[in-house]
Amino acid sequence: MHHFADRLTAAVRRTKTPALVGIDPRLANLPAPLQPNTESPSPEQVANAFVQFSKGIIDVVAPLVPAVKPQSAFFEQIGPAGTAALGQVIQYARSKGLVVITDAKRNDIGSTADAYAQAYLGPPDSTPFASDCLTVSPYLGEDSLEPFVTIAQQNGNGIFVLVKTSNPGGGRFQDLVADKQPVYQHVAQLVNQLALDTPGQDSSHSYGCVGAVVGATYPEQLVALRQTMPNTWLLVPGYGAQGGGASDVAGGFDKQGLGAIINSSRGIIFAHEREEFRERFSPPDWQRAVEAATLDMIAGLAAETPAGKLQDLS
Amino acid sequence: MHHFADRLTAAVRRTKTPALVGIDPRLANLPAPLQPNTESPSPEQVANAFVQFSKGIIDVVAPLVPAVKPQSAFFEQIGPAGTAALGQVIQYARSKGLVVITDAKRNDIGSTADAYAQAYLGPPDSTPFASDCLTVSPYLGEDSLEPFVTIAQQNGNGIFVLVKTSNPGGGRFQDLVADKQPVYQHVAQLVNQLALDTPGQDSSHSYGCVGAVVGATYPEQLVALRQTMPNTWLLVPGYGAQGGGASDVAGGFDKQGLGAIINSSRGIIFAHEREEFRERFSPPDWQRAVEAATLDMIAGLAAETPAGKLQDLS
Repeated sequence: MHHFADRLTAAVRRTKTPALVGIDPRLANLPAPLQPNTESPSPEQVANAFVQFSKGIIDVVAPLVPAVKPQSAFFEQIGPAGTAALGQVIQYARSKGLVVITDAKRNDIGSTADAYAQAYLGPPDSTPFASDCLTVSPYLGEDSLEPFVTIAQQNGNGIFVLVKTSNPGGGRFQDLVADKQPVYQHVAQLVNQLALDTPGQDSSHSYGCVGAVVGATYPEQLVALRQTMPNTWLLVPGYGAQGGGASDVAGGFDKQGLGAIINSSRGIIFAHEREEFRERFSPPDWQRAVEAATLDMIAGLAAETPAGKLQDLS
Repeated sequence: MHHFADRLTAAVRRTKTPALVGIDPRLANLPAPLQPNTESPSPEQVANAFVQFSKGIIDVVAPLVPAVKPQSAFFEQIGPAGTAALGQVIQYARSKGLVVITDAKRNDIGSTADAYAQAYLGPPDSTPFASDCLTVSPYLGEDSLEPFVTIAQQNGNGIFVLVKTSNPGGGRFQDLVADKQPVYQHVAQLVNQLALDTPGQDSSHSYGCVGAVVGATYPEQLVALRQTMPNTWLLVPGYGAQGGGASDVAGGFDKQGLGAIINSSRGIIFAHEREEFRERFSPPDWQRAVEAATLDMIAGLAAETPAGKLQDLS
């Protein structure tokens, strides 16, 4: 399907869950069998371990969830070998049918924004980090988002714009009140307009190719932002390790149980470190811990949010 | 000198100019002698051309200016080979004594911000893109900036935070008025506090390791922001190709003629394409066009801004 929102909607319906798995590899947290056999591994050895680990995650979650979200920072941290690994991970996840949202929070102005958009959202055969979707930061304003929207739309891809974030200091600028509304509501209005301007082909939903990142640590704000942005998919981080629970994210969904994807990173990919799984699964069985954590999250979201309605789909 | 502001201040005094050269390589604009000899160059060929071009720029400007600003987007656009090229360009510029400000406008929260900071601002021997300074976006708030400040300070490096940008749509969110002040002034107050908290050793200036990006297309705002941020170096883009002139940036300097560095990218690195230089210099002499454009900019800034006072230094 040549539209991001159509593709994401179909993937959520097919897997009957809004669970999104964040791929944030960190050397110290990799399961023992994947640790490089040396005290000072080279960037290439670390990059190779990240690829093996990420592929292992993808193999487990591809039949269970609609999408994954690789975090660029952890790959960039190991340099060019790391960015090569990121490219491989993106490609592998897409080959397994997953929607890939690369989390890089890029932005710039004019032709520089264009270069970033070409790097992540261009045609697969000429784009080094060819993703379905990229996260983008809004501070630089409307014209900084346009190159991303244009290139995303041309190639059937999408963007998620930061609107309200889940960190404790996120309110410092986002919550400032101007013209009787917090800054994040101003951002939300622009984001919904961009979504309205970029509708899909599938008339069973009303989402555009521009979505919004909305933190799950603020449940009331999630409800308000769902209202401001009826046409945007919401990417909700902060589930699990960052403190949000299934009931906190319920406000993000539409009446069909669509419209929000809920991210968990550490709680799933490093499930082998969680107390409840450490005893059940030995280090070589780390993928079974990932599977158990993913199924737990899927069940929690189905039980406590409108996404439960997805279970009724034939 | 183990503090970014001390190092930048010394470099500006030594070269007697605040001119900053932006390294934004684009294949279509490279001088003819550096174009790959094939219609469809591989990423490795493009990356190699970018390295040769960037080194050619650096060789010309290293004796003339204090600092360069490579733009990550143009390197990322060609994939892992491009990020390897970026690493080489940063290293080469530092080896020539230039202060290197990597323009990547990164940000994220918590341990992800930490990963970005480690990728660009950590110790040179273990940091893939080891720069003197990184540009950072503020939308995610105070706690998203802290990891960058901490790691920068530990390693004698710095950050420039986006405060007011020079693009036409920059005002959409930055100019919203909350508590009687535009959002960019709220950001400026935090940035100056972070600068105050991170002073250098050199008592002849009062700048910290946190600076601010302030667009040159708004001269009055530059004056106001210089007042709000007496302790931050300002990085002023928008000179030349983006429409700002020397007189427009005058308000960014302190009484000593310090405190602002003025960026030009296209106007200098693609000087061989400018009408006034096309006739004087043939394509193989593109570096002489770069030199002429740099000297023009230096002269303009010395004549029309308080940076002229730097000429009186012995």
